[in-house]
Amino acid sequence: MANKYVYSFDEGKKDMRSLLGGKGANLGEMTSIGLSVPQGFTITTEACIRFFDENEQLWDELLKEVEQHMEELEGKTGKKFSDINNPLLVSVRSGAVISMPGMMDTILNLGLNDESVKGLATLTGNEKFAYDSYRRFIQMFSDVAMEIPKVRFDMLLEGVKEERGVQDDMDLSADDFKKLVEEFKAVYKDEKGEDFPQNPTDQLRLAIKAVFASWQNPRARVYRNLHGIAHDLGTAVNIQSMVFGNMGKDCGTGVAFTRNPATGENKLFGEYLIDAQGEDVVAGIRTPEDIATLKENMPEVYDEFVKGTEILENHYKDMQDIEFTIEKGKLYFLQTRDGKRTAHAAIKVAVDLVEEKFITKEQAIMRVNPDDLNQLLHPAFDTADLDKATKLAKGLAASPGAATGQIYFNAEDLVEAKENGAETCILVRQETSPEDIEGMIAAEGILTARGGMTSHAAVVARGMGKCCVAGCNEIDVNEAAKTMKVGDTVLTEGDFISLDGGTGTVYEGKIDKADPELGGDFHTFMEWVDEMRTMGVRANADTPVDIKQALEFGAEGVGLTRTEHMFFNLERLPSVRKMILAKDNAERIKSLEELLIVQRNDFQELYRTVRERPMTVRLLDPPLHEFLPHGEKDKEEVAKMMNIDLSELEVRMNSLYEVNPMLGHRGCRLAVTYPEIYKMQARAIIEAALNVAKEENIAIVPEIMIPLIGHIDELKYVKSQVVDEINAVFEERNETMKYLLGTMIEVPRAALTSDEIATEAEFFSFGTNDLTQMGFGFSRDDAGKFLSEYVEKRIFDCDPFQKIDQKGIGKLMEMSVELGRKTRPDIKLGICGEHGGEPTSVEFCHRLGLTYVSCSPYRVPIAKLAAAQAALR
Amino acid sequence: MANKYVYSFDEGKKDMRSLLGGKGANLGEMTSIGLSVPQGFTITTEACIRFFDENEQLWDELLKEVEQHMEELEGKTGKKFSDINNPLLVSVRSGAVISMPGMMDTILNLGLNDESVKGLATLTGNEKFAYDSYRRFIQMFSDVAMEIPKVRFDMLLEGVKEERGVQDDMDLSADDFKKLVEEFKAVYKDEKGEDFPQNPTDQLRLAIKAVFASWQNPRARVYRNLHGIAHDLGTAVNIQSMVFGNMGKDCGTGVAFTRNPATGENKLFGEYLIDAQGEDVVAGIRTPEDIATLKENMPEVYDEFVKGTEILENHYKDMQDIEFTIEKGKLYFLQTRDGKRTAHAAIKVAVDLVEEKFITKEQAIMRVNPDDLNQLLHPAFDTADLDKATKLAKGLAASPGAATGQIYFNAEDLVEAKENGAETCILVRQETSPEDIEGMIAAEGILTARGGMTSHAAVVARGMGKCCVAGCNEIDVNEAAKTMKVGDTVLTEGDFISLDGGTGTVYEGKIDKADPELGGDFHTFMEWVDEMRTMGVRANADTPVDIKQALEFGAEGVGLTRTEHMFFNLERLPSVRKMILAKDNAERIKSLEELLIVQRNDFQELYRTVRERPMTVRLLDPPLHEFLPHGEKDKEEVAKMMNIDLSELEVRMNSLYEVNPMLGHRGCRLAVTYPEIYKMQARAIIEAALNVAKEENIAIVPEIMIPLIGHIDELKYVKSQVVDEINAVFEERNETMKYLLGTMIEVPRAALTSDEIATEAEFFSFGTNDLTQMGFGFSRDDAGKFLSEYVEKRIFDCDPFQKIDQKGIGKLMEMSVELGRKTRPDIKLGICGEHGGEPTSVEFCHRLGLTYVSCSPYRVPIAKLAAAQAALR
Repeated sequence: MANKYVYSFDEGKKDMRSLLGGKGANLGEMTSIGLSVPQGFTITTEACIRFFDENEQLWDELLKEVEQHMEELEGKTGKKFSDINNPLLVSVRSGAVISMPGMMDTILNLGLNDESVKGLATLTGNEKFAYDSYRRFIQMFSDVAMEIPKVRFDMLLEGVKEERGVQDDMDLSADDFKKLVEEFKAVYKDEKGEDFPQNPTDQLRLAIKAVFASWQNPRARVYRNLHGIAHDLGTAVNIQSMVFGNMGKDCGTGVAFTRNPATGENKLFGEYLIDAQGEDVVAGIRTPEDIATLKENMPEVYDEFVKGTEILENHYKDMQDIEFTIEKGKLYFLQTRDGKRTAHAAIKVAVDLVEEKFITKEQAIMRVNPDDLNQLLHPAFDTADLDKATKLAKGLAASPGAATGQIYFNAEDLVEAKENGAETCILVRQETSPEDIEGMIAAEGILTARGGMTSHAAVVARGMGKCCVAGCNEIDVNEAAKTMKVGDTVLTEGDFISLDGGTGTVYEGKIDKADPELGGDFHTFMEWVDEMRTMGVRANADTPVDIKQALEFGAEGVGLTRTEHMFFNLERLPSVRKMILAKDNAERIKSLEELLIVQRNDFQELYRTVRERPMTVRLLDPPLHEFLPHGEKDKEEVAKMMNIDLSELEVRMNSLYEVNPMLGHRGCRLAVTYPEIYKMQARAIIEAALNVAKEENIAIVPEIMIPLIGHIDELKYVKSQVVDEINAVFEERNETMKYLLGTMIEVPRAALTSDEIATEAEFFSFGTNDLTQMGFGFSRDDAGKFLSEYVEKRIFDCDPFQKIDQKGIGKLMEMSVELGRKTRPDIKLGICGEHGGEPTSVEFCHRLGLTYVSCSPYRVPIAKLAAAQAALR
Repeated sequence: MANKYVYSFDEGKKDMRSLLGGKGANLGEMTSIGLSVPQGFTITTEACIRFFDENEQLWDELLKEVEQHMEELEGKTGKKFSDINNPLLVSVRSGAVISMPGMMDTILNLGLNDESVKGLATLTGNEKFAYDSYRRFIQMFSDVAMEIPKVRFDMLLEGVKEERGVQDDMDLSADDFKKLVEEFKAVYKDEKGEDFPQNPTDQLRLAIKAVFASWQNPRARVYRNLHGIAHDLGTAVNIQSMVFGNMGKDCGTGVAFTRNPATGENKLFGEYLIDAQGEDVVAGIRTPEDIATLKENMPEVYDEFVKGTEILENHYKDMQDIEFTIEKGKLYFLQTRDGKRTAHAAIKVAVDLVEEKFITKEQAIMRVNPDDLNQLLHPAFDTADLDKATKLAKGLAASPGAATGQIYFNAEDLVEAKENGAETCILVRQETSPEDIEGMIAAEGILTARGGMTSHAAVVARGMGKCCVAGCNEIDVNEAAKTMKVGDTVLTEGDFISLDGGTGTVYEGKIDKADPELGGDFHTFMEWVDEMRTMGVRANADTPVDIKQALEFGAEGVGLTRTEHMFFNLERLPSVRKMILAKDNAERIKSLEELLIVQRNDFQELYRTVRERPMTVRLLDPPLHEFLPHGEKDKEEVAKMMNIDLSELEVRMNSLYEVNPMLGHRGCRLAVTYPEIYKMQARAIIEAALNVAKEENIAIVPEIMIPLIGHIDELKYVKSQVVDEINAVFEERNETMKYLLGTMIEVPRAALTSDEIATEAEFFSFGTNDLTQMGFGFSRDDAGKFLSEYVEKRIFDCDPFQKIDQKGIGKLMEMSVELGRKTRPDIKLGICGEHGGEPTSVEFCHRLGLTYVSCSPYRVPIAKLAAAQAALR
């Protein structure tokens, strides 16, 4: 038997999506559940695939099948495709398996020609409608199927409107449209070298070919690349008899959602236009009316529509986005699909649907896109206010949220301004460095001209849940002059700007914003998420404030405490610098004794906050020169404090200079050279844990993490120093406690030799930032410049610093997990890189079987949801 | 049956090395072939292993076995161990399977005590000899077996000598020695709290325990770590009856080689002392006599000795290093082993032995240590002159050879000095940069204060075969003042220094040196090497001069031509800088057109030199800022040339600044941003190859290599640009030629995804420098500072930039080879990192089945020998 390539709507079902495309399957489904749907049929995706196999030609059997279905359609509608008196008009639409906005879409009114347009005029008694329909068809057919630039038609239409002095297309007369039809046909002939096709069968054949061919157009390919959709799926073609909402006052067209897509409220939401075609609603020339008013205007139609929406929502068990048309008082459903919604609505709808017993908790969890939660967790601009705002520039959306404030060009000025009463300030820098930390804390938002998604500004801002736009190349920051320039606009200290960290947009002036509210639905939803999820979720947090925030968002512990962030604190920096610049060991040990006291206090505070939950503390990681003074003034101060000449200070500073600091003297390498640093830190951690455990009568199991391990002998060396110091503490105090000692896996060699590393490490935590840097061989500080080009040129699907590169970096992780478990089957495995809060990466970690992911406090709910979805998949 | 732990010498054979140790096996072998060897026996390494298993205790059965063998020995010698009148004295020596200088070595005269010393005096009629022997025994036993500091005895001996006003120990009297014996015993009692053991059996038991225990002393452990010797082999103990070379004028002792160890000449070579013990020869207090004079002094002994040496060389089939003693006119052989020799001698001996039909070519090849060839290929200092020279400092032995010359602190001054007639100059820099290249070419040698084994200076110097000492931290270079300071010594421009690149030593003043001579033996030997080797050996060479040198050393082609080295040439640098600093594409393309002409000429010269041999050309690799001017004066010149302000130049230069240039915008990433650069280079290569192929009527197959690939889509993108340009050349000229397009594998991710990469790459070349940098996560520019500490602290066995880290980086290579071959079974695989000329790395590459290794021209013979040895293994 020959293959069946064409399905009538009454043969289609919603689960035939891969054969009929999303639209075709839903039209079939609506038909089969008895809704009023204009009759039609679908040519399958398999036909599309065969079309490409046969050099983009349609074959006879297919044309015959289409002809049979056209005849059937003629029978059902009582119209004839080539009847000039009562013509059957159809729409032709593409319909892929996965919705693809980049593709060819719709041709309406196909079947019209110079003769049948007259028949249509007579039949409807509406010449204007008939010629308007014909000119629309010519334009759409030419544009969509024949690739004639739309602008050529638009210019003619605008010309006539100007001539007539009207604004609305509908104010033109039948004669105007007649004239336009002639002019449009002339354009067609000019472009294609032949007359506009008059035979409806030819029109249909060309339209089908055009829809098929559009599957491979460049926009569509780009879209598929971007969304990881396979190129060999093909598209279906839907051919449907036309219904007209624009035949008079008893006609209309509209769009409605079964629930409010912004709030999730369970109340019909939508709008419609009387005497209009679908495109008019979208075009926004006339203001549509609220769907509720349809009740008064056409009560019967309204009741039927409401019944239909209820049937559809019951049937699809999700909020539906429905298109409909009313032709001479008769309601037709043209399309239904799951409605797009805000994160707020998504959660409310999901929770409501579970409570209404439409769906299970599991289904509810799968319905919410983890990334969308970002909207909920950060403040956002008022939409109305945003529309009026002037865009200044666009940078990287480095940390979500919205910020409005006065600009300051260095941390000191900003802090001073705040102290003098400035309400909200924004820190604007070429790029930030650890010295800016106090300014970043005081700022509402951060804007940098340089640096990528994982630059200092971006990482720190995300950790703080603070809005940040980074790497905004368009602005020219002059820190000395305290000005920023964008094009011709120059802003000076104290001027207001606004940042949208979710889009990377920088606006001039103030914009109102609203703080996020996490309602009861959110908490109910997150409870279900916690039920389903099997992987742990911790937060990266360096301060009691961070930890509190993380716990509020549901973190189960701390996956990464960076001790260096304590070092950057302005009060401690002098001791840190004295330690680094010490001329000898004795001097260094003296400074370390000062630091021991403050670090122990820090850790005590942290343990009092995190209590019995696990907390992984990473020993000092960054190269020491990061802590050194930058400006001349700073240097002088430090020299004075150290009691040495400026020139001597510079000699000592220069000896720390590195060509590639990222690959330099940092992490555990510091502890090889200066074992006393890690010893001090280990002592501070254990003493703090012992103190708090006693004081609060709780059980604490410190997790101490050694960074940048690449070789087992390196770990052995450093570990033995740490263990000796801890044993010394136990002996001095005649106390003991259980603790864990583990490593970061962030150096490729550590991943490759994890079987060896696991002999000494009780846990691994993947540092996927560094693993990505070293695995790809690019520095996150520098890659910003060319990585965007890589993404633009489609060399990379996405920035590997945002989503784990599963093929390459993921392979290292996989090897490490496998080798690590071979040596130590019960090894604790986590991730504390930036990827720990990114949904596809979280899913990957789940598949690897990690014990937990750790991310910035603000991404904890996102990571949890992604983990739950991964567990359900 | 109980285990046998003790073997009499007449039971031992040379192939029982692992049981009896090297010394024991050879003593057995000499005994069994009938040479006169003092009788004795060996306690096995298995006994040593059991000793450690049993908490370092000797067990009864062992002691009984030793006792039985002592009795046997008494029978053979006619002496008795505890006979105070005719005492049997023995030596006790350790003897590991692999010779280990770090271990406990020898105790002589064991068996003496307060009574038997008198018997010995009576028996020999030589009281002085007897007491001298006794005091030596006490001292050695105390030092070696009981760990009493040797200095305590030396001080006493010196004291007596001073008192007597004599210089030579032998000028002391019997009474002096008697007194010393008493004093030595007092030291023993003071240190150990008990009397010096008088019972010979106790002495022997303690000595055996001490030898066993010495296997685990720290020096021995360090030595084994350093040489990769297993810790569980254990040592044997040799107990041998004493013979005395110091009993009068008819006694003597000496050392001889069967051939000349410096030249390889087939003539007995050695020296001896009359009336002396072995240690006296070594101590150098008396000047020994040439072995030839023994013929006159003791003609019979001489004849017997010569016959013995012939027997031994025939037997061992290699040049022997033999120790002997003559006791009252009777010759004894005490030890024989393969003699250490210079590279020169090693080759001559190997070739001679093959010609004398003692050994096969294969055996000859295995006899020469590849690293030793370095001596042959580079000039060396005159040894006598070197002994007199004053050492200034010690740095890294970055590139072998010897250099003497006047110091200059920048390239310009050095070049000028040469032009003004300076004969030989040495470039002294903080660290070198590409701008120094002309100075490096003109210099005799290079000395830098910073930078490691793979710093710019080191890499370039090795490529040129030029002597270089790098990272010499002890010297303080002041480039501005043109001085260098070491401790209190200050040297200024024009002063002479000398560098030994083989040891890293810096000397003050001039030292004479000799150029290397590669004799006919060398060429014969290398021919055999070429016969045996299965892996190809190419050279890294960037200029016709380099290539010529490489071909002379036997390179089969060029594995790496770095096009950037052409860019650094002073004549081209202006065009390069114009290209880099171009304000737009048009300007850039103009400069590239200038560069096309010079690059095409360069490639033509290269192809004329390399001819039909393969040559892999790497497209531009370093970050562009490497080509920018550094000094103020340079910047001004460039600004003038570019016709822009200095400030504008600085803006453009700053935009190229990178935090981690190693991980920055370089390699193929440049070609993503500026495709025109690689296009120009591809055109230059292909046009040059077409021109030379026609002009010389030869077949050239260009190999074009794209660096720093990390992702298949990156390769596809860059490759398509290159291929398009090549096709354009073919079309323009209506000619075509076969060419290969491949990649470096130097980014870990490329190794991990080599199956994908191989779909587009026709060959891989492992860039193990970068692979090591990224795999370990340390920059070779910065790691110098801490890597030496890693090696010192035994965290690393060796610098992974020198020897491939087979466990980690090697694993990446292994994966890459396997994955690459899966996709493309015939893929060409090479290595062009610095490791390509290092023997253990070459062997590893052979095991991986690489097609070739490529190294600096001066290491080609080394790589070839290593490859041949690997093939034979």
